[in-house]
Amino acid sequence: MAKELTSRSENYSQWYNDLVVKAGLAENSAVRGSMVIKPYGYAIWEKMQRILDDKFKETGHENAYFPLFIPKSFFSKEASHVEGFAKECAVVTHYRLKSDGKGGVMVDPDAKLEEELIVRPTSETIIWDTYRKWIQSYRDLPLLINQWANVVRWEMRTRLFLRTSEFLWQEGHTAHATREEAVQEAETILKVYADFVENYMGVPVLQGVKSAGERFAGAVETYCIETLMQDGKALQAGTSHFLGQNFAKAFDVKYLTKNNRQEFVWATSWGVSTRLIGALVMAHSDDNGLVLPPKLAPIQVVIVPIFRKAHQLEAISEKATEIMKALKEKGISVKFDDRDTQKPGYKFAEWELKGVPVRLAIGPRDLENGTVEMARRDTMEKETLRMENIAEKIENLLELIQKNIYQKALDFRTENTFTVDTWDDFKAQIEKGGFVWAHWDGTSETEQKIKEETKATIRLIPLDDKKVSGKCIFSGEPSERRVVFAKAY
Amino acid sequence: MAKELTSRSENYSQWYNDLVVKAGLAENSAVRGSMVIKPYGYAIWEKMQRILDDKFKETGHENAYFPLFIPKSFFSKEASHVEGFAKECAVVTHYRLKSDGKGGVMVDPDAKLEEELIVRPTSETIIWDTYRKWIQSYRDLPLLINQWANVVRWEMRTRLFLRTSEFLWQEGHTAHATREEAVQEAETILKVYADFVENYMGVPVLQGVKSAGERFAGAVETYCIETLMQDGKALQAGTSHFLGQNFAKAFDVKYLTKNNRQEFVWATSWGVSTRLIGALVMAHSDDNGLVLPPKLAPIQVVIVPIFRKAHQLEAISEKATEIMKALKEKGISVKFDDRDTQKPGYKFAEWELKGVPVRLAIGPRDLENGTVEMARRDTMEKETLRMENIAEKIENLLELIQKNIYQKALDFRTENTFTVDTWDDFKAQIEKGGFVWAHWDGTSETEQKIKEETKATIRLIPLDDKKVSGKCIFSGEPSERRVVFAKAY
Repeated sequence: MAKELTSRSENYSQWYNDLVVKAGLAENSAVRGSMVIKPYGYAIWEKMQRILDDKFKETGHENAYFPLFIPKSFFSKEASHVEGFAKECAVVTHYRLKSDGKGGVMVDPDAKLEEELIVRPTSETIIWDTYRKWIQSYRDLPLLINQWANVVRWEMRTRLFLRTSEFLWQEGHTAHATREEAVQEAETILKVYADFVENYMGVPVLQGVKSAGERFAGAVETYCIETLMQDGKALQAGTSHFLGQNFAKAFDVKYLTKNNRQEFVWATSWGVSTRLIGALVMAHSDDNGLVLPPKLAPIQVVIVPIFRKAHQLEAISEKATEIMKALKEKGISVKFDDRDTQKPGYKFAEWELKGVPVRLAIGPRDLENGTVEMARRDTMEKETLRMENIAEKIENLLELIQKNIYQKALDFRTENTFTVDTWDDFKAQIEKGGFVWAHWDGTSETEQKIKEETKATIRLIPLDDKKVSGKCIFSGEPSERRVVFAKAY
Repeated sequence: MAKELTSRSENYSQWYNDLVVKAGLAENSAVRGSMVIKPYGYAIWEKMQRILDDKFKETGHENAYFPLFIPKSFFSKEASHVEGFAKECAVVTHYRLKSDGKGGVMVDPDAKLEEELIVRPTSETIIWDTYRKWIQSYRDLPLLINQWANVVRWEMRTRLFLRTSEFLWQEGHTAHATREEAVQEAETILKVYADFVENYMGVPVLQGVKSAGERFAGAVETYCIETLMQDGKALQAGTSHFLGQNFAKAFDVKYLTKNNRQEFVWATSWGVSTRLIGALVMAHSDDNGLVLPPKLAPIQVVIVPIFRKAHQLEAISEKATEIMKALKEKGISVKFDDRDTQKPGYKFAEWELKGVPVRLAIGPRDLENGTVEMARRDTMEKETLRMENIAEKIENLLELIQKNIYQKALDFRTENTFTVDTWDDFKAQIEKGGFVWAHWDGTSETEQKIKEETKATIRLIPLDDKKVSGKCIFSGEPSERRVVFAKAY
C-alpha cells in the first residue's frame, strides 16, 4: 500500500477524501450521493454505537423501530418542518417494475401509489403519528425512545461521511408531561453527546444553542455541540432539540393529567450520525494517515514480526501470542500481522495509515533481550520496552494516548479561538479560520448579511457564557453577549 | 392490562396478532404494510442481533454498509434475480417536494430522476457492483462481509413480523476463489443459523436444500432451516445461498489466480430477519401470552412485591434489592415491579403476557420465613424457594426452562411429523398440518401440481437423509428419497 496521501497543507479537502478512501473507511458508491461504509469504517461506527447506546439506556431510553416510509400528507402537518425538508426528499411513487420487452426493466405505470411515500429524512412525523396511540395519560409519560436507522436527505454536493444523501444515525424522540422536563431531557442528551465526543472521540466541544435561523425545522430551541477541524472550519457534531408542543399539536397528542385535564405533551428529538466519523478523521489525523483515539480504534495494538527466516517467525509468534493473551485479558484489541507477502516497512506504513494507536515490532534481537519496540501513532515516537508487565504498560500508554489526542485538539482549538470587536477584524479572522467570538445584535437580518458577506454562520450562542454587553460587529447595535461565528462544514 | 387474547384453538391467526400487539412487540403503522417494532419487540431483536453478530465475527466475517438505493439498471443484470424481485419493488422516481399552493405538498415534477432507484429488496446487485472494485487477486479472497439493514419487498397481504413490506435483517455476501470454498461457506452459515434457532430460540429445525422452484432468485443452491409452528404450518427461519458464479458473471468480478489466470469468483449470500421474532412467538407461546426462552428474554426474572402498607413494601424492597444484586452478578436481567398503581394479580397477568420466564413474588410472610414464591412461565408451576443461594437456584432454573421449551417444541414436531405413501393419505395429512415426508419424482411440474391441489410446498430436501427409493405420491414415478412437504407461512 503506497501512502499517496495529499498533504493537508497542499489541499485539505483532497487530503480528507484520500484518507477516507485509502484507510478503508468508506468510498463513493454507484448510487449518486450514497457511500459504501467499508469494514474498517463500519467497525468505528459499531464502537460509537455501542458506547452511545449504553449511555442512552443508562439514562432510561429504549430502542424501537419505525417505518422507513412516511406518507406525504404527514409532512405538511408541521409547517416549518415540511419547509425545512421538502427540498431534499426521495419520493417513492411506484411499487413494481416490469419487463421493458428489451431485456431490461421499467417502472410499471399500473403500479402507481395513491399517495406518494417519502423516504424518511428524519422521523418526527411518523413517530408523532404513532405516539398519539401510545400516549393517553400521565402514566404513559415520559416516553423515552431512540431509533438506530438510515435516513435520506437528497444532496447535490456530497462528501464522504460529512454530507451524503443516505446516512446512518440515531434519533431520539421523547414525550413529556411538562415543558421543564422536556427542556431537561434536551440538556441531558446534550451532555451525553458532549461527554462522548470529548472523552471517547477526543474532540473538545463548545456547547450552546442555535440562533433562530439555524434551528432544526420544527424546534423551539436547538442545543448543539460544535467542534473545530484542523483547517479552521467548524463542524456541528450533534444536536438536541426542544420541540415545545409543535409536533404534539400537529399530530394531536394529548394526555390526561393527574387532575383529569387533557393537555398537549412536550417533546424533544436529538441525533448524531456517521458524520461523527468525518469529524474524528478531520480532528486528529495527519499526513501519514488516520490518528484514532484508543477508545474508538477497531485495532488498538498491532504486532509486526521482523524476520528473515521461518524459524525466526516461529519464535516471534510464540512471544506475540503471549503478549496478545495478556492484552486481551485487559480488553485490549490486538492484531498480529504475520503476513509473509509484505515487508515490515510496508506494514508499518499501512498501520500508520489506518491509525492504530500502538505498534509493537518484535525481531530476533528483541527475543534475546526480552524487549519489544513500541511506536506511538499520535506522536510517532518510538521506545524500547522491556517485556515485564508489558500489558500493563500498554494499557497505561493507551490511556496516555487518549488524553494526548484530546489535549492536542484542545490546544489547537485554543490557538484558533479569537475575540474580535470590529467588522474589519471579523472579516479578516473569519477568512483565516477558527472560532470567532463576537457581538451580534440578535437579529436574523444581521446574521443573514454576515453570512452573505463572509460565509460565516453563528455556530452557537454559548450556554455557559456570562453575559457581557457590547456592540454588534456588523450593525453597531447593542448586544448582550458574544456568540461564536465560524465557517462550517 | 386485561388479557383479552383470542385462544389458539379459536383462531390461531387472530391469537398471534393479538399477542404481538398486546405484549408490546409490534403494531401496524400508518404506512400500509410497514410495522412499528415497539421497545419490547426491539429488545428481543437486539438480543438476537448481538448473538448472531458475535457468531458471524467468530467465523471471520466483518460488517459493512451498502446503499439503500439500487439503480434500476443493476437489477436487470442477473436475469433470474430481476424476475424474482421486480414485482415487489418500491421505486424512487423523484427527489424533491414542493408546495401545492393549498397548504400541502406535492411531488415536484421538475425533480424527476434520470434513472429510477429501487429501494433494496436484497443487496446482491449493489454489492457485486462494489466487489468488482474490491477484488483483484486471490489475496483479496475470501471476502466475508455482513450487513445489518432494512429492506423493502412490497407485499399486498402483510402480517406482523412474518410478512411486512419493510423488515430488518442481516445479509451476508461472500466471495471465494473456489466452488468448494463457497459451498463450504453456505453450509457453515446454515449451521450457525441452526445452532442459533435451536439453542437460543429453542425451536428445533430441519436442515436441507430447496427444490429448484423454491430457490432464491439467482442461486444455484439454497440451503434452509425449516421450523414447525403450533398450528402445524412450516416457517422458513433462514436461508443460505450458494450463488455459483452467477453474480460474478453478471457484474464481471474476476480475480487473478496464483497461476496468473483471470477467473470469476464464487459467491454466497445468506440472511435471517425480524421474521424470527414471529417464529419465536408462534413456536412457544400459549393462551396466556408469550413464552420466551431465557436466552432471548429481555427480562429474565421479574420480582413482584405483595404488600398492603408502605412499610411492608420497604422491607420487601430491601430483600428484592439483595436478590437483584445477586442475579445481576450472574448476568441475569431482572426487573422489580414496585408500581403502587396496580394490584399483584394484574402484574402477574401482565408479566405472563410478556413471557418473562421466572416470576418471584415476595410478601411479608416470605420475609418471615426466608422464602420467595417462584412461578415458571413455561409450565406455570409454582414453588416456594428458600432464600439461600437463590441466584444459583434461579440460574439453574433458567437453564432448565431453556431446555424444556426446546424439548416441548421438539416433542410437538415429533408428534406432527408424518410419513405417507399414497396421494389420499398425503392430501388428508397436509390438510391436518405438520411435516409430511413423502416421495417426489423430482420434477417442477409435479411440485407445482401438488401445490395447486393442496397448497403444500416442498419445504426442503433433507441434508442428512439417507436415500431410500420409492414412488412419487403424485405421479407414481420413481423417487430416490423422501422430501418434506408442508403448508407454510
